[in-house]
Amino acid sequence: MAEAARQPVTAPAKRGAHLLDAVVEVVADGGITAVSMRSVAAAAGVSLAQVQYYFRSKDELVAAAFEHVSEGVEGRAADLDTSGPPRMVLRRLLELWLPSTAERARDARVWVAFTAAAMTSAPLREINTRIDRDLRAGFSGLLRQAQATGDLDPALDPDVHAAVLLAVVDGLVTQAVLAPEDGRADLAARGLDAHLSRLFADQEQP
Amino acid sequence: MAEAARQPVTAPAKRGAHLLDAVVEVVADGGITAVSMRSVAAAAGVSLAQVQYYFRSKDELVAAAFEHVSEGVEGRAADLDTSGPPRMVLRRLLELWLPSTAERARDARVWVAFTAAAMTSAPLREINTRIDRDLRAGFSGLLRQAQATGDLDPALDPDVHAAVLLAVVDGLVTQAVLAPEDGRADLAARGLDAHLSRLFADQEQP
Repeated sequence: MAEAARQPVTAPAKRGAHLLDAVVEVVADGGITAVSMRSVAAAAGVSLAQVQYYFRSKDELVAAAFEHVSEGVEGRAADLDTSGPPRMVLRRLLELWLPSTAERARDARVWVAFTAAAMTSAPLREINTRIDRDLRAGFSGLLRQAQATGDLDPALDPDVHAAVLLAVVDGLVTQAVLAPEDGRADLAARGLDAHLSRLFADQEQP
Repeated sequence: MAEAARQPVTAPAKRGAHLLDAVVEVVADGGITAVSMRSVAAAAGVSLAQVQYYFRSKDELVAAAFEHVSEGVEGRAADLDTSGPPRMVLRRLLELWLPSTAERARDARVWVAFTAAAMTSAPLREINTRIDRDLRAGFSGLLRQAQATGDLDPALDPDVHAAVLLAVVDGLVTQAVLAPEDGRADLAARGLDAHLSRLFADQEQP
């Protein structure tokens, strides 16, 4: 399962894969605005002709990089330790998005850039819609399992709360990477735990 | 208080205010990438020279438009009916962000674009940080009032839950405006209510 989910990243059919990390670097440093066939060639240390050989336009390049980043997260999710109660698995899954390292913080910045670009680009919106749907489906599956094991109130709508969970992670990560001070992952982790405690109606420590 | 909070929007000191709606339109349609002195002049129906008279650069224009949009939301917040229990006021306040009309959906798209741009621009990040801090302070003030009236568990950390609330609204609105189908505001409103129900530990209807 882990192998199957990650297979697209390494499949030979994936054209120009060696250029996609360069696109991600360019987006992380300068936003989508900074992406051009030329800037990607420079960042990848290849000729402009080589970028043009693999991608016909800037839009195609950006879409491929968006897929690339999302496959990276999906690969990490597929590798996840799924042992233990559903709530613990959910916490582990959500933690994958927290900007706990410089690389994760970079991914988060890139993610926000792609989301914003999806507002005005139909192909990017399509990718975004698919990823969001998959994430919500994963979250609501775990919430249903938690209801089955008696850990989550069965009266709750798992689909609505999956959308809220996605919002909490997206929103906290955005706040964290924009926060001026250090301790960003900490801020997001505290918010995430506070949210899960309310969702699962933990007893508060007075 | 309402007048004081809105005053900057109409103050004569605000240079080039008549161009800012045009910037917002350009961002809503094509993202930050589409903003240039020229595209704003075209959208506002004025000469390039007039845009240049008020703003020295594209960056200055974008920063002024970001402030303009946030002042719009702050103006709506200042006009809010603050009668009733803190939870009701909070719900009313959060509702201001939901994309319930075409204009609000446009504002939400623009907001996401500015947030993404803040990732790679220090002046925009400064504006974003200030707005986020003000919003979180407003939310946590209402949460503290709800704790004082006995409507919210006093053991909860109001600052952490204010950050979560901001995340929920930001995240749900982003999902809603990217959703392909209609009923966007509905999706966000259901998520928001589900979150508030858990936060305030409402009795679930079995």
